Amino acid sequence: MTATEVAADVLAPLAIDLPAVERGAVLPRGFVAGASTCGIKQSGRPDLAIVATSGGPASVAGVFTTNTFAAAPVRLSQRNLGTTHAGVARAVVSTSGSANAATGAAGDADQQRIGEAVAGALGFAGQPEHVLHLSTGIIGTRLPVDRVVAGIATLASQLSSTDDALLAAAEALRTTDSRTKVSTTSITLSSGDIIVSGIAKGVGMIHPRMATMLSVILTDAAVEPATLHAILRGAAARTWNQLSVDGDTSTNDTVFLVASGASGVQVPRETESDARDMHSFAKAVEAVARDLARQQAADGEGASTLITCQVSGAIDDAEARAIARVVASSSLVKAAIHGRDPNWGRIVGAAGNARLADAALLEAAGIDAVSATQRAGRAATVAPDRLRVSIAGHLVFDGRNSGPIGFDRSAARAAMEASEVVIRLDLGLGDGIGEAFGCDLTEQYVIENSEYTT
Amino acid sequence: MTATEVAADVLAPLAIDLPAVERGAVLPRGFVAGASTCGIKQSGRPDLAIVATSGGPASVAGVFTTNTFAAAPVRLSQRNLGTTHAGVARAVVSTSGSANAATGAAGDADQQRIGEAVAGALGFAGQPEHVLHLSTGIIGTRLPVDRVVAGIATLASQLSSTDDALLAAAEALRTTDSRTKVSTTSITLSSGDIIVSGIAKGVGMIHPRMATMLSVILTDAAVEPATLHAILRGAAARTWNQLSVDGDTSTNDTVFLVASGASGVQVPRETESDARDMHSFAKAVEAVARDLARQQAADGEGASTLITCQVSGAIDDAEARAIARVVASSSLVKAAIHGRDPNWGRIVGAAGNARLADAALLEAAGIDAVSATQRAGRAATVAPDRLRVSIAGHLVFDGRNSGPIGFDRSAARAAMEASEVVIRLDLGLGDGIGEAFGCDLTEQYVIENSEYTT
Repeated sequence: MTATEVAADVLAPLAIDLPAVERGAVLPRGFVAGASTCGIKQSGRPDLAIVATSGGPASVAGVFTTNTFAAAPVRLSQRNLGTTHAGVARAVVSTSGSANAATGAAGDADQQRIGEAVAGALGFAGQPEHVLHLSTGIIGTRLPVDRVVAGIATLASQLSSTDDALLAAAEALRTTDSRTKVSTTSITLSSGDIIVSGIAKGVGMIHPRMATMLSVILTDAAVEPATLHAILRGAAARTWNQLSVDGDTSTNDTVFLVASGASGVQVPRETESDARDMHSFAKAVEAVARDLARQQAADGEGASTLITCQVSGAIDDAEARAIARVVASSSLVKAAIHGRDPNWGRIVGAAGNARLADAALLEAAGIDAVSATQRAGRAATVAPDRLRVSIAGHLVFDGRNSGPIGFDRSAARAAMEASEVVIRLDLGLGDGIGEAFGCDLTEQYVIENSEYTT
Repeated sequence: MTATEVAADVLAPLAIDLPAVERGAVLPRGFVAGASTCGIKQSGRPDLAIVATSGGPASVAGVFTTNTFAAAPVRLSQRNLGTTHAGVARAVVSTSGSANAATGAAGDADQQRIGEAVAGALGFAGQPEHVLHLSTGIIGTRLPVDRVVAGIATLASQLSSTDDALLAAAEALRTTDSRTKVSTTSITLSSGDIIVSGIAKGVGMIHPRMATMLSVILTDAAVEPATLHAILRGAAARTWNQLSVDGDTSTNDTVFLVASGASGVQVPRETESDARDMHSFAKAVEAVARDLARQQAADGEGASTLITCQVSGAIDDAEARAIARVVASSSLVKAAIHGRDPNWGRIVGAAGNARLADAALLEAAGIDAVSATQRAGRAATVAPDRLRVSIAGHLVFDGRNSGPIGFDRSAARAAMEASEVVIRLDLGLGDGIGEAFGCDLTEQYVIENSEYTT
């Protein structure tokens, strides 16, 4: 779609150029998985999951929370992957019910023991650095590490290569999530078919008792770690970094992308002659990431409506994303969507406050380092006399026509009675597009978060 | 108070070195004021206010919203004051009920007519640039400018130099504010006594139907415009820019500081030999600004509790303020305070997300331009193993003692049953202090903002 075509129709959703996904658990070749109850959660629900490779080390890349109080599992995973946050691994272990955050040196030692237990149980004792860690739950409590280690020993013998085993792992990631989050796609590269499957839980700190957004994306493609990391950073910049439930960022947020190579299908580096396969693979990863992010937004605490804000006509994609993010994050916009109020004044007001991300995020989104430093934190460019806004397919503001316009308010309200409301902005300035995901702000959010919980 | 003394007691509120204020309307010498009902608001409540000088042009400085969609009154005030946002003026006119925002060229012409009407009615026709403008209310509606102009003609003949006239102006600023916001202080400089009085309404976009935070601070001291502007920027950086109700910034936010000089008491420039008077005056302005900001936070939409977050032991004041702001703005912290939950995990998590303000705000807070550019948007420095946190006088986290500590949860909850809850953080790193103001997040906030309002 060209910018002109996009600008021609601010009423329609943006066409996002990504492969189709399905919401199913499909375990790619080269992996085994499983889950069990080891006794972290008082509820007795599953709280331990392992996803491991069945054929030796796999390529892996990670992206992590930027919170200064990064939890013990985050810091250990970062240390295992090294400064590039990419490398090889043989297993991902997840505990839920305790975040192992703000637990000091004792918490670090607990997490180290868990890594050694996984490596020992899976037959690569002496290489605990090949274990990556996820954890989610209460901040400031120690993990019951003896029970976790015992659970690992049992679970390691029960891992399976079935799709149900991946679904079980996805379920064990959950804390107060109301739905299990899975997504999968299959694409054909020049040397064969590959699968990209993801599991996820939570979003931001929407579930403070059981904090954290976690995701693991698996593929049977053969991809170098550095390529995986570049693809993961780009996909995260367009999906999870565009997701907001309440503006808080947990101490434990983590996404891993793991490539077993078991399909025998190589994904070449971008620098190699034919980049088509690399781009196809990147789009498959992003499609799964986007679908998981949308599931997370829709399942936001207390939420009844998924809010998708799509921006076209920006100076570039980074500006479009900044504007989409601030609109989808605005408490006032979120409350208006909850009330089915086509309140364009709040949308326009929010767009006028948009600021570009920090330099690291701009670089992850493909902006060169010098330009990223110069532009970080600056106001995004919006021209009031060129802006057009639609809500749920109804044009509500046209800056090229003096701004406020008459529209059928009852029809707009009726169109907003849906599980997803799309807010479209066209800035009329350039070719940049971007989107962001959020959810409505409800009384239930306040009730759930003001209960006495600690 | 030295940093050591501050660090020694994380349980006590910070001692803020500012003169005492009273919550009364006291009109300084050299001003007249008044308010009336001209027919903007359908409720028939006062919607027009004028504060004017009684003795010719006064020094004035302004700070304004950073929203790209700045309203017509903001842009006209900025044009009248020139690029320095400081100069001279003879009147401030305020309309409430319509924001005159997103109204295009027609809205600009309306605001221009209002300025000409005020200048004509007050006897300085031909100098409409000596009128400054405030407006608040619905975004996207035109002002009923004929009625406003007629109202100005009548009101101009009724302006008075009584304190009640200032109170009436403060009341006419109100839209959905539940309380009138006034604050005053009197200080003695080397050549005599002066008064600093402020009026204000709203905060951020807490009242979206009637958007905007507005304030006018008046003094009878004689001060040059450039000095006023430096003082106002510094005070705003420590008060209004540390205030958050819901994270949105309106299209109309404006603060004016007007000095009539009618006391005959000169406030010299900082560069002159004795800077004591300038510093005393700056503290008086900040005391009034801080008190108004606290009144605004306490009156936040749906709020039942004022949240004051005070940070000591930071590397510098800019870092302390960044951390205080992110804690006081966190939806999760706000909801926890509403539920009287001493949930230190949310406070620690929020502190770990703190980022410094943008370069302009850092410069306003006294950081040199080069350093401001380098540090803008960077993460604030927090060392988990040195942080200590108290809530309502109860120590709840001590990073120097492995973090989570036992505390009397019932006593902490009981102490939180107050109209103001103080969250204290000591970072143990340096001498920097700072504070921020917010309010709890309640079901009522959501209800008020999700109603069908436009």
